[in-house]
Amino acid sequence: MTVDTQQVTFDSISLDSGATLAPVEVAYETYGQLNGKRSNAILILHAFSGDAHAAGVSREGGQPGWWDNMIGPGKGFDTNKYFVICSNVLGGCRGTTGPSSIDPATGKPYGGNFPGITIADMVRLQKKLIDHLGIEKLLAVAGGSMGGMQALQWAVSYPDAVAAALPIASTARHSAMQIAFNEVGRQAIMADPDWNNGNFYEANLPARGLSVARMVGHITYMSDESMRQKFGRRFRDKDGPGFDFSADFEVESYLRYRGSQFVTRFDANSYLYITKAMDYFDIAAGKASLAAALEGAKSRFLVISFTSDWLYPSYQSLEIVSALRGRNQDVAYCELPSNYGHDAFLVEVGEQTDLVRGFLDATYREVNRP
Amino acid sequence: MTVDTQQVTFDSISLDSGATLAPVEVAYETYGQLNGKRSNAILILHAFSGDAHAAGVSREGGQPGWWDNMIGPGKGFDTNKYFVICSNVLGGCRGTTGPSSIDPATGKPYGGNFPGITIADMVRLQKKLIDHLGIEKLLAVAGGSMGGMQALQWAVSYPDAVAAALPIASTARHSAMQIAFNEVGRQAIMADPDWNNGNFYEANLPARGLSVARMVGHITYMSDESMRQKFGRRFRDKDGPGFDFSADFEVESYLRYRGSQFVTRFDANSYLYITKAMDYFDIAAGKASLAAALEGAKSRFLVISFTSDWLYPSYQSLEIVSALRGRNQDVAYCELPSNYGHDAFLVEVGEQTDLVRGFLDATYREVNRP
Repeated sequence: MTVDTQQVTFDSISLDSGATLAPVEVAYETYGQLNGKRSNAILILHAFSGDAHAAGVSREGGQPGWWDNMIGPGKGFDTNKYFVICSNVLGGCRGTTGPSSIDPATGKPYGGNFPGITIADMVRLQKKLIDHLGIEKLLAVAGGSMGGMQALQWAVSYPDAVAAALPIASTARHSAMQIAFNEVGRQAIMADPDWNNGNFYEANLPARGLSVARMVGHITYMSDESMRQKFGRRFRDKDGPGFDFSADFEVESYLRYRGSQFVTRFDANSYLYITKAMDYFDIAAGKASLAAALEGAKSRFLVISFTSDWLYPSYQSLEIVSALRGRNQDVAYCELPSNYGHDAFLVEVGEQTDLVRGFLDATYREVNRP
Repeated sequence: MTVDTQQVTFDSISLDSGATLAPVEVAYETYGQLNGKRSNAILILHAFSGDAHAAGVSREGGQPGWWDNMIGPGKGFDTNKYFVICSNVLGGCRGTTGPSSIDPATGKPYGGNFPGITIADMVRLQKKLIDHLGIEKLLAVAGGSMGGMQALQWAVSYPDAVAAALPIASTARHSAMQIAFNEVGRQAIMADPDWNNGNFYEANLPARGLSVARMVGHITYMSDESMRQKFGRRFRDKDGPGFDFSADFEVESYLRYRGSQFVTRFDANSYLYITKAMDYFDIAAGKASLAAALEGAKSRFLVISFTSDWLYPSYQSLEIVSALRGRNQDVAYCELPSNYGHDAFLVEVGEQTDLVRGFLDATYREVNRP
């Protein structure tokens, strides 16, 4: 299945910070067909470094989508049955307006002048896209990690536009540890002299800082066990210590490679703005409790977490589940066994597929009940 | 108790890499009195960023030692009874020869020309110090984290010179995850243009890179729970998001502060060399098994780990315990409850004191049996 990324431009968007972005572009892809009643649309929400290319093979890059194992004909998000949409988030660098986009006021990239954004801002822009596509009510909003935050925000911001929400390996708010790891990544980028307060587009990219930031991220996405299985203490091209600072261990060369690859596809300023949006996110902010914050949601919920995910541990998913159950809202929860750490939501296809398929089928039957 | 750091110079030391350092200096402190039989000496081994100042108040800096809550009159390592020694490790930057020391061949700091070092090299230099002090057999070698690696190495390298070994919150070898976190720190330092291949002593220190490295380290020394208790999601001097990249959250300003403080007291090259020594350390390297590697040890062992220590998890201590028990060696093990993560070995004084005191008393009775 070859897919094209599409783009739509809106006049403007008002942000939580009080700023306005005008115009604002959104990159998105769709898979499957919207039915006549427009009742089979599912919005997929990507994680921190994801993009609109969630499934199929990109005509442009030839690469499969980041959740291609979950989205497609006969898959968990079955495109024979559902119309699936995925867009790049506000603040991103893959076709949606972000810090690397041209500021019409200056004719140059926004850089450090891009306004601060929130998860709610991302969702507000997605709502414009859904309106543009003529969809009044989504069958489901679904995503892992930061995608799960957006799913929660959708359920709260637009309760009448969401029949089901699937926050996966996610949280209602970042813990101090999650903020801390994001902050290390930001500091690594800002420590790079090439970052230049965000104004680097006409000079060198802050490649060294961004690479270090990505290395930290990668460790937190794996687990002690998955790293042991994948790398152990194997030396690379050597029998033992090299007594220098080249990559001795396989895990070192892997991280360096992933860091350097990331630099070719991700914008350092998007890294800063999007991680801040994640850290600021607190669906219960200004409310008496998480239960009070979620009680306006009218959707059904399927919450999934993974046993070895220490970055978004199961207790964070359980907080969401408890809050919903406390108000007698419709919520199913499953903690799936996995050694893959936070990456599990991207790679553990089997049980996740069964859970998602059953949940979507039931939701579809209910929504389309005669 | 005011203490002075002392220093001794040896002609040379041969390293595992094949290189020789000549001369080599050692900074050390002692607390308590060596008895007439020279049978009450305990060598304390410091962790990655520690130094010789383990206890008492430094005459020079006025600061308490890094393990002052465990070492002193009436404390776990009771200086009324024992003669306690602590030295700065080889490769360090607090008085013992390391990359910031003057290379006699050039009259300038070694910098990137410092030879690669191992935990066994550190121990070899400590043995010179113990010989210099006229001690044939240590009552105990004890340390947390990298100090525990040195304790294991002592027991294996000099079985006749050690009556008891106390590896605390430590491991027989680094896991892929431990190597990975160290590698991120190294990459952060080497990404700083001021690092200049290790030759920065006559110019700017690689302060930004070293600070980021330390921030990563600090997160791994804490636990999800201890960070929640200490910082939560509290904003600093603000009620909510600042929509910029200054420190919004308390955890951010804490990490930045600790990072910037570290730069004033630690050498970036020592960071590289010592973390590499930790990563290379594998007490079982070249042996059929961990049990085979440890079977030459003649000492008693007390192994301690902490429940919330996810950087040096209890399973790593249990590997040591199992290997020793499998060969019927004398080993006691205790996993202590704590929320402090890896930092627990530095702060959980109560139960640790009881365990250490009882173990040392029994060892002392056995060694001094009439």
